[in-house]
Amino acid sequence: MNVLIVYAHPEPRSFGKALLDRSVSTLVSCGHRVEVSDLYAMGFDPVASGDDFTERRFPDALQYDREQKQSSQRNTFAHDIQAEIDKLLACDLLILQFPLWWFSVPAIMKGWIDRVFVNGTVYGAGGMRFDNGGLQGRKAMLAFTTGCFPDMMEPDGLLGQRDVILWHLQHGTFGYSGLQVLQPFVGFSIQYTDEAQRHAYLDAYEGRLRGIEQEEVMPSHLLTDFGPDWRLKSHVAPRTAGHRRAQPGN
Amino acid sequence: MNVLIVYAHPEPRSFGKALLDRSVSTLVSCGHRVEVSDLYAMGFDPVASGDDFTERRFPDALQYDREQKQSSQRNTFAHDIQAEIDKLLACDLLILQFPLWWFSVPAIMKGWIDRVFVNGTVYGAGGMRFDNGGLQGRKAMLAFTTGCFPDMMEPDGLLGQRDVILWHLQHGTFGYSGLQVLQPFVGFSIQYTDEAQRHAYLDAYEGRLRGIEQEEVMPSHLLTDFGPDWRLKSHVAPRTAGHRRAQPGN
Repeated sequence: MNVLIVYAHPEPRSFGKALLDRSVSTLVSCGHRVEVSDLYAMGFDPVASGDDFTERRFPDALQYDREQKQSSQRNTFAHDIQAEIDKLLACDLLILQFPLWWFSVPAIMKGWIDRVFVNGTVYGAGGMRFDNGGLQGRKAMLAFTTGCFPDMMEPDGLLGQRDVILWHLQHGTFGYSGLQVLQPFVGFSIQYTDEAQRHAYLDAYEGRLRGIEQEEVMPSHLLTDFGPDWRLKSHVAPRTAGHRRAQPGN
Repeated sequence: MNVLIVYAHPEPRSFGKALLDRSVSTLVSCGHRVEVSDLYAMGFDPVASGDDFTERRFPDALQYDREQKQSSQRNTFAHDIQAEIDKLLACDLLILQFPLWWFSVPAIMKGWIDRVFVNGTVYGAGGMRFDNGGLQGRKAMLAFTTGCFPDMMEPDGLLGQRDVILWHLQHGTFGYSGLQVLQPFVGFSIQYTDEAQRHAYLDAYEGRLRGIEQEEVMPSHLLTDFGPDWRLKSHVAPRTAGHRRAQPGN
C-alpha cells in the first residue's frame, strides 16, 4: 500500500512524534510505501484564501468552493495545495495523526483539510460524495492522543460517545469524500501515563498497523440508502452513530 | 448584554458579511454592547505554538496545555491571545459565525479556539468544566451558512443529525467550557438561494437576535449526572444527541 500520514504536533520531542516514528518504521517494515506530511515542520499554512488559486474564475468576490472546482479542472492550485492533493490521490490509506484539541484536529490540520479536500476532486457535482466520492477505493483512520480517560468516551460517558465526537471527521470528512473508515487508534489519558504505558501504546499501535490491511471498515450508509429527499429510505435501518429514525412529528 | 461575535469568512462581500452586519446593527439597536473579532480581517494566526507564551515553564519540550495553565496564573500569554481572552471573559453571549467547512469551523476559527480557550481560565484542574467550567454564566451560539439542504441534517438525513454534526462544537467546546448553548442559526443551501431568500435569512436572524435573551438553552447534563467512573448514573436518562445508555456487554 501507499500510506499517507498527515501529522500535526507542535513539539518534535512529543509522544506523538514517537507514535509517528513507530508507525513509519512499522509500515515500511511491512513493505508499504509511506509518505509523511508533518504540517508543523512544513510550516503548512492552514488559512484558506484567494491566494490558493493561481487564476480566478470569479476575481471580484471569493467563492472558495467554486474556485476549487475551477482549479481542479485547470490545475491552477497554489503549489503547496497541489503537492498535498498529489500525495492524497496517490495513497491507499490516509492516516491523520494528532493530539485531540477541543474534540477535533488542531487548526493546522483543519486547514489541511479545508485547502486540500477540494471541490471537483475529492467531492463535487454529479453526486460525487460518500460511496461515489472522489477518494473512493481508499481507506482512512484517525490516530490521536488525548488527556481523557476511556470511560469518558463511552456512549454514556462525560464527553459523549466516541463516534459522535468524531462524526465530523469520520463521517463528515472521510466518509463524505468516499474514504472507508477504520476504527481510530486512541492513546488515552496520555498526560497521566508512565513510561511503561507509553511503550504499551507504541506496541499496540504497531500491532494495529501490522494487521491494518485485514481490518474491517466501520459501518456506513450507501447513497442509495437515501431517497430523493435525502432521508433514509423507510426500510433501511440506521446503522451509524449519527443517524437515527426520525420520530413521528419531526 | 455584552456580545462577542467571532467571525471567520475570507470574503468581505459575502453573504456571511451581510449576516454579520445585520447581527451587529440588530444587537446594538436592542441596547447590547457588541464586540467583533473578524479573524480574517485581523490576520489572526491560528497555529498554536511555543510563541504563544512570553515565558515558559517547560522550555525544553512544549506541553501546550500546561503552558496555558502557567500563563493563566502569570498573565504571560502573547498579546493577541490575551486580547481575545479579555473579550471572551467580558462577554455574556458568544456567537461564532462562519461558513460550515467540512462539518466544522474554518481552520482560522479552530485556531482561535485552540489558542484562546485556555487551560486554567476556560477549563482546568479541580473539575473546572461543563457546569463548573470557566465560562459559566455565559451563553453561546453557532451561526453558520452551508451549502446543504435542511433535510440532510435531519436525524435520518444524508449528513447525519445536526446536533451530532455540531457535537464537537456545541458540547465539546461550548459545553465543556461552561457555556450554555442556544440553538444554532443556520442559513441552508446558501449557494442555491435567490436574493429574496437571502433577505428572508437576514430577517430571520434579526428576529432570533431580538428575542435572544428569552430563548431557552439546549438540554445538557450536569457534572453530578455522572458517577466517579465518568458514566451517567443509572437513574439519569440520556438527554443529548451524544449520550445514550450503554448496552449490556458494552
